[in-house]
Amino acid sequence: MTQTLFAGIEGGGTKFVCAVADENNHILAETRIPTTSPDQTLSGCAEFFQQQSSLGTIRSLGIACFGPLDPRPTSKGYGHILATPKPGWAGADVVGFFKQRLDLPIAFDTDVNGAVLAESLWGAGKGLKNLVYFTIGTGIGAGVIAEGNLVHGFLHPEMGHIMLARDPEQDPFPGICPFHGACFEGLASGPAIEKRWGLRGDQLPPKHPAWALEAHYIALALVSVTCALAPERIILGGGVMAQEQLLPMIRDKFALLLNGYMQTPLIAQHLESYIVLTGLEGKAGLYGAFALAHQALEAAQ
Amino acid sequence: MTQTLFAGIEGGGTKFVCAVADENNHILAETRIPTTSPDQTLSGCAEFFQQQSSLGTIRSLGIACFGPLDPRPTSKGYGHILATPKPGWAGADVVGFFKQRLDLPIAFDTDVNGAVLAESLWGAGKGLKNLVYFTIGTGIGAGVIAEGNLVHGFLHPEMGHIMLARDPEQDPFPGICPFHGACFEGLASGPAIEKRWGLRGDQLPPKHPAWALEAHYIALALVSVTCALAPERIILGGGVMAQEQLLPMIRDKFALLLNGYMQTPLIAQHLESYIVLTGLEGKAGLYGAFALAHQALEAAQ
Repeated sequence: MTQTLFAGIEGGGTKFVCAVADENNHILAETRIPTTSPDQTLSGCAEFFQQQSSLGTIRSLGIACFGPLDPRPTSKGYGHILATPKPGWAGADVVGFFKQRLDLPIAFDTDVNGAVLAESLWGAGKGLKNLVYFTIGTGIGAGVIAEGNLVHGFLHPEMGHIMLARDPEQDPFPGICPFHGACFEGLASGPAIEKRWGLRGDQLPPKHPAWALEAHYIALALVSVTCALAPERIILGGGVMAQEQLLPMIRDKFALLLNGYMQTPLIAQHLESYIVLTGLEGKAGLYGAFALAHQALEAAQ
Repeated sequence: MTQTLFAGIEGGGTKFVCAVADENNHILAETRIPTTSPDQTLSGCAEFFQQQSSLGTIRSLGIACFGPLDPRPTSKGYGHILATPKPGWAGADVVGFFKQRLDLPIAFDTDVNGAVLAESLWGAGKGLKNLVYFTIGTGIGAGVIAEGNLVHGFLHPEMGHIMLARDPEQDPFPGICPFHGACFEGLASGPAIEKRWGLRGDQLPPKHPAWALEAHYIALALVSVTCALAPERIILGGGVMAQEQLLPMIRDKFALLLNGYMQTPLIAQHLESYIVLTGLEGKAGLYGAFALAHQALEAAQ
């Protein structure tokens, strides 16, 4: 009997990472394909997986992709990328392409939905039924698990665009979101930091006032998410969170802003296990794809 | 065979409404018991139900109650009221009391969780799997159904306390929430309206600037909720929403604030069926209790 393998694609704006792993997420083969046209990019992915047959039997494919996309299997538009500024990708039928090229059960979702699923299986949210995973980097997005289910709603959450209270006296910067100005992403994404301070985050020293403001905005968003969903844990990942000084500052500001409300022991005494860093060490995207592949196989059985 | 009946309690800060209904929610008996001490109040409820035996067989009891409370059946604190300023009620074991007095399956949840469940069964959210119900009145709260499940998370959502962006130049009023000042409830609840303008909402004429500001704050909250959960519908109830001029203003301001983001047809073309009024005509609380009673009976079978 050949080894059971899973195929994963982490589809991003600059590259598609493809990998094949065993049941324990040990990666046996991996490649990176530049994001060009959908046909060229997806063909490259399909060929890579076809070439790995000597490793064992690939049982399913998980695709964790940039959005917006349609992840609802019952929808007419299922498996497609939706309106996006990336040339050629608006309307691309990603699932349809792989259905033609690979005879495998497929699961398709946003990168952050994949990531929160992976965190719940193997990462910082293991065993929890109510979980939010945020990526805070070039953009801001979140995946949500509520009562054990990945939340899609009418499409998928877009938590980077929840509205934050900016105090114009404290922070005259109007935000960079082309839709909302001062939403979460507009105020606190990597590009927002760079635009406000004139330097990239990794060029700003740890004691720079940028970080207190960043922690304030992240904490503001987390307070709203806590009040909206009462998640059992909030997991933070993405490039901005590589700044190690941020996490304790976020917890402090969260406690100040929530100000004694929702006094479960979790929040009153254990903030260090309520707001945590990703447990997947920069691999949330690819692990997300594998988590979706596991889900696809279970659904097919 | 006697008629199958359901018992419902809508537990509020000033009164407990008890009713017995048939399977189609036709109310056969109803009473109001003032909220005094837990023992006196709950005894009054139990006696009322015991007196209705001539009507048929009560099969289950649903309790939709003011919070905070513990609605998680697997929790040690299940069935209790938590920290509340209401004298005598902090720690009251509501479910334990009725388990001793009535031999019935019981479901216990917040008033707004009951209401969103009732809306999904019989009201404005019939058949939808992703739904938010807001009550906007003396306080602001919400019940959430995500992917078909009532969301409890670590306890239950407290959407009245999501943080809103107040522009101090447009609105110098600092908000009345003792915890957060300018959260949703602090800026937009009935008492916030009265405190800001010196008159109760029902004393302010429909063209008063109070309503444009109120619609703005409600819309701000709904944009954040839409980005956080992508619900298929948002249902608004509570005393403030009795102001008929509000709903169209909220939809207009929501469209302006979301500004073309999340362009599903639902939001781009059908806001009138995305943001709607309660379908339970002021009975969301009692219908919520019946919805919980139905749930209790199903769980027991």
